[in-house]
Amino acid sequence: MMDNCSSCNEINGSPTHTTSPVNILVTLNSNYLYPLKVMLKSLFFNNPGNIFAIYLIHTDIKEAELADIQQFIADNGQTLNVIKIADDYFDKAPTVFYYTKEMYYRLLAFKLLPEELDRILYLDPDILVLNPVNGLYDLDMQDNFFAAAYHDIPAVKKVNKLRLNLYDIDEYYNSGVLLMNLALQRQNIDEHMIFEFVEKNHAKLIMPDQDVLNALFAKKIYPLDEKLYNYDARYFRYYKISSNGFCNMNYVIRNTIFLHFCGKRKPWKQDYSGKFEALYKHYEKWALG
Amino acid sequence: MMDNCSSCNEINGSPTHTTSPVNILVTLNSNYLYPLKVMLKSLFFNNPGNIFAIYLIHTDIKEAELADIQQFIADNGQTLNVIKIADDYFDKAPTVFYYTKEMYYRLLAFKLLPEELDRILYLDPDILVLNPVNGLYDLDMQDNFFAAAYHDIPAVKKVNKLRLNLYDIDEYYNSGVLLMNLALQRQNIDEHMIFEFVEKNHAKLIMPDQDVLNALFAKKIYPLDEKLYNYDARYFRYYKISSNGFCNMNYVIRNTIFLHFCGKRKPWKQDYSGKFEALYKHYEKWALG
Repeated sequence: MMDNCSSCNEINGSPTHTTSPVNILVTLNSNYLYPLKVMLKSLFFNNPGNIFAIYLIHTDIKEAELADIQQFIADNGQTLNVIKIADDYFDKAPTVFYYTKEMYYRLLAFKLLPEELDRILYLDPDILVLNPVNGLYDLDMQDNFFAAAYHDIPAVKKVNKLRLNLYDIDEYYNSGVLLMNLALQRQNIDEHMIFEFVEKNHAKLIMPDQDVLNALFAKKIYPLDEKLYNYDARYFRYYKISSNGFCNMNYVIRNTIFLHFCGKRKPWKQDYSGKFEALYKHYEKWALG
Repeated sequence: MMDNCSSCNEINGSPTHTTSPVNILVTLNSNYLYPLKVMLKSLFFNNPGNIFAIYLIHTDIKEAELADIQQFIADNGQTLNVIKIADDYFDKAPTVFYYTKEMYYRLLAFKLLPEELDRILYLDPDILVLNPVNGLYDLDMQDNFFAAAYHDIPAVKKVNKLRLNLYDIDEYYNSGVLLMNLALQRQNIDEHMIFEFVEKNHAKLIMPDQDVLNALFAKKIYPLDEKLYNYDARYFRYYKISSNGFCNMNYVIRNTIFLHFCGKRKPWKQDYSGKFEALYKHYEKWALG
């Protein structure tokens, strides 16, 4: 009888048993739980059939808020793993001006996440995911610790140049989308190297985790195409003109994976206006009702 | 045994047996089958749980094209009813300059549709449906033949004024969204009245079906709020400013039912650029892959 049980065979042979989940990392505080839902809704919608394991590293998000985001993710058929970092965990680590110890969560994810995870994709909450992430997630990163994109936009480059002088690096990577080779990081990165760097350079650091990433690991970052993997939503016209019209709206909607709402003005705030405002509001309504 | 068959009870008690479908009318030729899919995708997505009966009145759409749109609608769990009008059906009716006899399909839908239909909602294919249509569909139209919106925008008003002189009407309604009381129309509208009007005024008609609608039936049109039921996608700034910011993007995405891409420039064409471009492309990708 058991041998002929078609439903058992179905379950045993189900792809859920053989397909590994795509690991997604977010590190944030309560203020970003709202846009996090929008980002996740867009991720789930544009990646049908994928199984995601969402990891949230935090310190002070309240239990009720965690229950709410857990329910949201469960309602979308996915799972959330919460990693709470004790207040005193980084007590010996230096911090920078008004940045808190949370600046280390992204850089030290390889220490904070379960050891069995070899790879994870970190995403900022101010992102819309427009297309499947599998191509990036399965990337052969070679011997790089990270994969990320830098913004090759003149206005951004100018800022980068200041940093080039500071840190003697070729490009300044944006840390909003960060594919991590955790296995390789565990073998090669010593947290004290990071703490020492912050200690020595704290006066120069502006966006501390991104600055540290670039200063210490720029040579170990696999460069990604920003138009696909970290499209700065402020620069639609620039991308379009500089590509002779190739990177038009059609291209973005059909090819760009991560649309990143960089800068101070955020699309979930009242004063926002931009080329992707209607699209963001669409996902926002859908995610939050 | 039969009495205890839970699956039979389920089927018999299913709401599909008791809920009337929402009837949707489209009248178009092959050139508009592409945007029709986008419009329908947005209609279905933003009206979950609704049952739609789509009626398509046409003359020369090819069998393969009809099969394709039928499949598309079936894949979305809805049904299509095709009404083919013979080439010679309107042979005695006058036509206007380069407009064909298809100009009559919307005005004479009450004659062309099955007699058992009392009400139908006509929609242009250059529309995105952003919110549920039920509120409009269930409207008490009183003794009006149609419900429609007029565009209260200065630039549009100027054009209307010309028409006011022509036809002595108060407002010029847009015929892109048209709720029809078919039962009342059958009792009160004589097709010859329409033909005679076209015959007499053919030199003055610019948008023939819309002009006829206004000239003959303006007093029998229930006026709808254009910001909800016929939002002209070209005038985001005007709507926002004239409402002191109330009708902002958040309002549109959460309240507007029909976003109408009026005018010559269409969002599925290469040269389009506008506030809702990204949103349109999003639905377009989703509908058409």
